[in-house]
Amino acid sequence: MEGVRGGDAAAVSLAALLDPVSIAVIGASDDPGKIGGRPLAYLSRFGYRGRVLPVNPNRAEVQGLRCYPDVASLPEVPEVAAVLVPGAAAARAVEELGAAGTEVAIVMASGFGEVGGEGAAMQEQMRRAAAATGMRLVGPNAMGSANLTTGTVLTFSTMYLEIDVTPGPVAIVSQSGSMAVEPCALLARQAIGVAQMHATGNDADVTAAEVAALVAADERVELLLVYVESIGDGAALAELGRVGRARELPVVALKGGRTAAGQRAAHSHTGALATEDRLADAFFEEHGIWRARDLDEVSRVAGLHLRRWRTHGTRIAVVSNSGASCVQSADAATEWGLSFAPLSRTTTDALAEALPSFATLTNPVDLTAALIGSEGVFARVAGRLAADPSVDALHLALPIAGEGYEIDSFAASLADAAKDKPVVVSCPMPDRVSQPFRDAGLPVFLTETEAISALGSLLGQHARLARARARLGSDVRAWSTRPRGSGRMLDEAASLAFLAAHGVPVVAHRLCHTADEAAAAFDAFGHEPVAVKGCSDAVTHKSELGLVRLNVTTEPDVRAAFDAVRSDNGAIVARMAAGRRELLLGAHHDPTFGPVVLVGDGGTYVETIDDVAVLFPPVTVDAVVDALDGLRIAPVMRGVRGEARVDLAAVASAAVALGDVVDEVVSIDVNPLFVGTDGCVAADAVVVVAD
Amino acid sequence: MEGVRGGDAAAVSLAALLDPVSIAVIGASDDPGKIGGRPLAYLSRFGYRGRVLPVNPNRAEVQGLRCYPDVASLPEVPEVAAVLVPGAAAARAVEELGAAGTEVAIVMASGFGEVGGEGAAMQEQMRRAAAATGMRLVGPNAMGSANLTTGTVLTFSTMYLEIDVTPGPVAIVSQSGSMAVEPCALLARQAIGVAQMHATGNDADVTAAEVAALVAADERVELLLVYVESIGDGAALAELGRVGRARELPVVALKGGRTAAGQRAAHSHTGALATEDRLADAFFEEHGIWRARDLDEVSRVAGLHLRRWRTHGTRIAVVSNSGASCVQSADAATEWGLSFAPLSRTTTDALAEALPSFATLTNPVDLTAALIGSEGVFARVAGRLAADPSVDALHLALPIAGEGYEIDSFAASLADAAKDKPVVVSCPMPDRVSQPFRDAGLPVFLTETEAISALGSLLGQHARLARARARLGSDVRAWSTRPRGSGRMLDEAASLAFLAAHGVPVVAHRLCHTADEAAAAFDAFGHEPVAVKGCSDAVTHKSELGLVRLNVTTEPDVRAAFDAVRSDNGAIVARMAAGRRELLLGAHHDPTFGPVVLVGDGGTYVETIDDVAVLFPPVTVDAVVDALDGLRIAPVMRGVRGEARVDLAAVASAAVALGDVVDEVVSIDVNPLFVGTDGCVAADAVVVVAD
Repeated sequence: MEGVRGGDAAAVSLAALLDPVSIAVIGASDDPGKIGGRPLAYLSRFGYRGRVLPVNPNRAEVQGLRCYPDVASLPEVPEVAAVLVPGAAAARAVEELGAAGTEVAIVMASGFGEVGGEGAAMQEQMRRAAAATGMRLVGPNAMGSANLTTGTVLTFSTMYLEIDVTPGPVAIVSQSGSMAVEPCALLARQAIGVAQMHATGNDADVTAAEVAALVAADERVELLLVYVESIGDGAALAELGRVGRARELPVVALKGGRTAAGQRAAHSHTGALATEDRLADAFFEEHGIWRARDLDEVSRVAGLHLRRWRTHGTRIAVVSNSGASCVQSADAATEWGLSFAPLSRTTTDALAEALPSFATLTNPVDLTAALIGSEGVFARVAGRLAADPSVDALHLALPIAGEGYEIDSFAASLADAAKDKPVVVSCPMPDRVSQPFRDAGLPVFLTETEAISALGSLLGQHARLARARARLGSDVRAWSTRPRGSGRMLDEAASLAFLAAHGVPVVAHRLCHTADEAAAAFDAFGHEPVAVKGCSDAVTHKSELGLVRLNVTTEPDVRAAFDAVRSDNGAIVARMAAGRRELLLGAHHDPTFGPVVLVGDGGTYVETIDDVAVLFPPVTVDAVVDALDGLRIAPVMRGVRGEARVDLAAVASAAVALGDVVDEVVSIDVNPLFVGTDGCVAADAVVVVAD
Repeated sequence: MEGVRGGDAAAVSLAALLDPVSIAVIGASDDPGKIGGRPLAYLSRFGYRGRVLPVNPNRAEVQGLRCYPDVASLPEVPEVAAVLVPGAAAARAVEELGAAGTEVAIVMASGFGEVGGEGAAMQEQMRRAAAATGMRLVGPNAMGSANLTTGTVLTFSTMYLEIDVTPGPVAIVSQSGSMAVEPCALLARQAIGVAQMHATGNDADVTAAEVAALVAADERVELLLVYVESIGDGAALAELGRVGRARELPVVALKGGRTAAGQRAAHSHTGALATEDRLADAFFEEHGIWRARDLDEVSRVAGLHLRRWRTHGTRIAVVSNSGASCVQSADAATEWGLSFAPLSRTTTDALAEALPSFATLTNPVDLTAALIGSEGVFARVAGRLAADPSVDALHLALPIAGEGYEIDSFAASLADAAKDKPVVVSCPMPDRVSQPFRDAGLPVFLTETEAISALGSLLGQHARLARARARLGSDVRAWSTRPRGSGRMLDEAASLAFLAAHGVPVVAHRLCHTADEAAAAFDAFGHEPVAVKGCSDAVTHKSELGLVRLNVTTEPDVRAAFDAVRSDNGAIVARMAAGRRELLLGAHHDPTFGPVVLVGDGGTYVETIDDVAVLFPPVTVDAVVDALDGLRIAPVMRGVRGEARVDLAAVASAAVALGDVVDEVVSIDVNPLFVGTDGCVAADAVVVVAD
C-alpha cells in the first residue's frame, strides 16, 4: 500500500468514525474473547457491511478474514483503524496509518497519558504524528466506538458479551469507558436501546465534546448523554449545544468531579474548583445543555425524554389519594425547581362540580382515600387538570391502591392526557397493582420523589433548551481562547479612567503627585470625608500593604495620609463612595470557556462569601438582572424592611459595558462597586490590558 | 357493662395499644372487604389471641363472632377499642368507652380536624371527653395500628389485601396513613418485614412521637421509621430520642413540608418556615434521631441498618475497576458528608506489594480494568482495606463485570470483610452478573451514587447517634413549654444591664436624661465617636423610627442628637463599638422545642442573610464553637488573607451565658454583637422578661 496523504488534510473528517467504508484492526486476534479479537467479532455480529482488514504479523487469517502483516501490506487505505497493540507499536501504527491517509485512528491501548511519564511523552508523540498527517486520533486509552445503526462496533468492551444491547434512540459519549457502559446497562434494564456509544479515553486529539457534536447531528439519536471529567474544549461543547438546539435534541451532560474529593479522584487540580464548576454550570445553561446530578437522574429521566413531549414550562399539577403524597411531591418539586400551576377558573369550577364541598380545590389536588374510588371522579379531575393550559405536566401519586380502585379507568384517562403533555405515575404497590399504568404506556415510578425528580429533570431540560434557543437560536458564539499572556496592569487611576471611558461610573477622584495637590483635591470635594490611596501599577492588594486611608476628614490628615501612602505613580484622593451594598464586577478570558463577565457580592471577603454569577458576552441587561436575582444577597438588593430597591439597572448597565469591552483587555476587576438606590460607582478597580 | 373508670386515670397506659387483652370494634361489619369488616378479618388472619368484641346494633354476629349492640352491652371493658363509626356516633362511642374504662380508643373515622369547622369542634369534644376519663385517644382520622408480633392488626388499610406483609424487624409510625403504607410496600419489595405499623391521624391526643417512643422500646424492633408533618410534641420526640439512644436503635425520621410548597400542601402556616425547619433539624441532631431526605433514602438504607453494623465514623474506602466510578463515588461521598479514609502505612505497603508500580496507592483505589481480573489481587486489596482501622466502611464499585471477573472470589472476600464493617457493592450489570454478591449476603445497588448515599445515611445516623449518646447518654432534658405570655420588654439600658449582670460584655454606654448628661458622657468617653439612641421600652426597631444617631463626633452634635432621639426613658450615649464582624445572639422558648439559643451572622439583614445556628441548653463552649464553624461566615471568622481569627471563645462564652439564663426570660435578642480578635461586645439588645 502506498501512502496517499499529501497536502489534502482538509478532506479528512472525523465523520468517518460513524460509518467507514473500511476498517483496519491493528493487533487483531483470532480469539473473539480476547481484547484484539472482540472488535472483529462485534463487527461481524452487528452486521458491519464495509471491508474489515485485520493486521497481525503472526497470522494469515483471523476469524475467517484474510490477515495482513502490517499497515504497509494492506490492499487499501483503511478509512478508520482500531489500534489495539500497546506502547511503541501503537505509536508506530499511528504514524503509518496517518502517512497512509487513514481518516481516523482509535487507539485503544492504555498506558499513555493516564500513567504520566514516558506514557505521556509517547501520547504526545502520537498526537503530533497524527496532526502532522491530518489524521484524527481518538484516544489513546479509548474503549472505542460503537454505532449500532451501521454495525460499526469498534470496541473491546465486554459489555456486549454481558448485556443484550439493542439498537435504539439513545447515544452515549464518554471520556471514560465504564461511564459509557454503565448507562447502557441501566437503560437495558428499562429495555431502552442505544444507537451509538463512544468512549474517547485520554482525548489527546479528538475530544468527547467533538464526538458528541458529531453524534448529535444523527437524526436517529433522540437523546444524547455525555460524560466528561474535564472540559478541555469549550468551543466543541458550544458546537454540541448548537447542534442540539437546532434539532431540539435533549443533550444531558454528567460532569464527574463536582466536588473537591471528586476532582482529586479524577487527578485534577482542585485550586479553583468552585469557580470552574460555576463556569461549567453557566456554560451548560448558556448553550442549552442539561447537567444531570448523577447517573440515577439520567436513568430516571431517559424514558421520559424518549416520549418527545414538547412542553417548555415548569408548572406541574399533582393529584393523589393522599395528602402526605401531595406534601412529598411539593417538597421534591421545590428542590427540582418546579412550581404548582395556579389552576384556571374553568378548572376549579369543574373540580368544584366533581368533588364534594369539603374538598380543597387547590393544586396539589388531594382527592383523599374516600374519593378516589368514586365512579368517574378521578378521570374527570385528571382530564380537567391536563386540559388546563397553565399545567405543563401531571403527576398521579398513588401511595396506596389495589382492590376497589378503578386502575384501568385511571390509566385510560391518564394515557389520554399524556398525548399532549408529560404524565408520570408513582405507586409503590406490587407491580401487579400498577401494571395497568405500564400497559397504557405511562412512566411508573415507585415513589413521589422519583416521579417528581424525573419530571424536574425533563421539564428543566426543556425549559433550558427553550431559553437557549430564544437567546442564541442555532448560532454558536465564536471566541478566541488564544493565550493572552500576563498583560500589563494599569494603576488605579488609569484603571478608573479606562472604566469611565467605557461607560462604567467611577467615584469622584483626583490623581495627586504632591501633598498640596492632595489638599487641593480635598478642598475641591468640599471637605467631605475622602479616601487617600497609593497609586501603583505594581501592587494589587493596597489595603494589605497599608496603602489605603479611609474616611480622612481634615486637611492635615489628608496631607499626612498622602505622605504615608504615596507610591510610584502618586496617590488618589477620592470621595468616600457609599451605597447600600458593595458588589464586585469582573471580566476575563477563561482558557476553556472564553470571555466571561462576573457579577456578585463584593467587599473584602469576596472569595469566602462566594456569591457570584457568571455571564457570557454579549451581556444583556436582562441577563444581568436575572443573574443578580439568583444571588444570595438578592433580597437585600430588592430591599427589605421598607428599604427601596437598589439600582439594578445601573449595575446591569455596568456589567453590559464590561461584556462589550472584554475583548480589548486581559482582565478587569472592580471591587467594590457601590450600588445605592440611584446609580452605582466603581470605587476601586484593576484593569489588565494586553501587552 | 358498668363504667369502671373512677379517679384512677393514672393507671391508664398507651402501652395497651401494642398488646391488649381485649379489643372492641365499634361499627363492625360482616363483610371483610368493608372498612368496618377489615379490622376483624385482620385480627383473625394475623392470629390475635385476645378477645375480640364487635359492636353493631344491627347484627347478632359478625364474621363468626358474637356482636353487641352498643358499648354498654359489652360483657367486659375492652382494653382497646377501634371506632369506625362516623361523626357524632364516633364522639358518643368515645365518651362511652372512656366512661367504661377503656385504655385506648383509636378513632379511624375521618371528617374531623382535617376538614375544619364542625368537624374540628367535634374532634375537640372527643379529645375533652377522653381526657376527662383518662382514656388515651389515637386519631381521629387514624388509619390504625398494627403489631404483627402480637397479631394486633387494628386498621382498615387495604394494604394487607395487596401486599404480603410479613412480620419483621422494622417499625413504622406515621401521622399519615399512606406514609405508613408506602414504606411497607417499598420494604416488601426487598423482602423486609414489618413488626409494627401505626398511623395516628390528627394527633388530637396521642401524638405520633408518643407512639414512636413506645414502639422504640420493643426489643424486636431493629429500625424505626417516623413520618410527621408537624412536630407538635417536642417532649415526646425527645423521649423517643432517649429510648433510641438507650438501645442504640436507629430512628429515622421523615418530616414532610421541608419547603414552602410542601408546607402549603400540608396546610401549615409558612411564616417561619426556615426557622422552624432549622429548629427541627437541630432538634433531631441533638437527640440522635436521623432525618432522611426522602422515602428513597429510607428504602435504600433500611437493609443496611438491619445488618446491625456498629461503626461510628464516616471515613470510607472505595475500590473499583474504573476511575470514573471512583470520581462518581467521591462526588457522592462529599454530598453525604463522608470522607475518604487516609490509608495506614501498613495498608499502602500491602497495596504496593499487590499492585504494579504505576497503580496509585490512594483512596479511592482504582484497580483499573486490567487488574481486577488478576488472580487474587482484588481479594488481597479488599481484605487490606477492610482491615485498616481508619476505614469505617467499604464500597466496591463494579460498573462493568462479567466473563473473566472472579466475582465469586470477590464476593467471598467482601463477605468476610462485611463481618466487621459495612460493605456495599454497586453494579449496573444484569442481575445474573451481580448475583454472587447477593448470594454472599452483600447489599448490591445499581449505581455508585445509590451505594454511597445508602452508606452516607447509615454512617451519618451511626455518627449522630454516637454524638448524642456521648452528649446526653440516656438522659432526656426536661423543659417546660408552658406559655410565657408576651412578657415585659426591657428598654435598651435595662437590657444591656441585664446582659452585663449575666456575663455578656456590653458596649461602654450611659443612660442620659438631659442634653448636659449626654455631653458629659461624650466627655467621659474621651470625645471618641459615639452613638446616641433613644431609650424606650415601647419600641424595638429604633433605627427605622429614626431614634439612632451613629458616629457623632462633636459635643454640639451629641446635644442635638440627644434632643432628636430622646424617648420616654431618655437616651443612651454609647461608644461606637467595632469589631471584625457583627453577629447575632438570641435565646427564646419555642412552643414545640423548648428553650433554644441562636448564634449567627448579624447586622441589618439578619432575616435575609439567614446564617444562624441553633443550640439547646445547657449550651457548652464546644457546642458553640462547632455551631459557629458550620456557618457560611465561618471562614471570615477564622480569618482570611492573613487576618487573625476572631475571638470565638468570647462569643462562645456569651452564648453559654444566654443558655444559662434563658429560663429566667421570655426572650433575649442581641444584634449586633461585635466580635474582634480580642473579645466581643453587645452593642444593642432587647430582653423580654416574664410578667
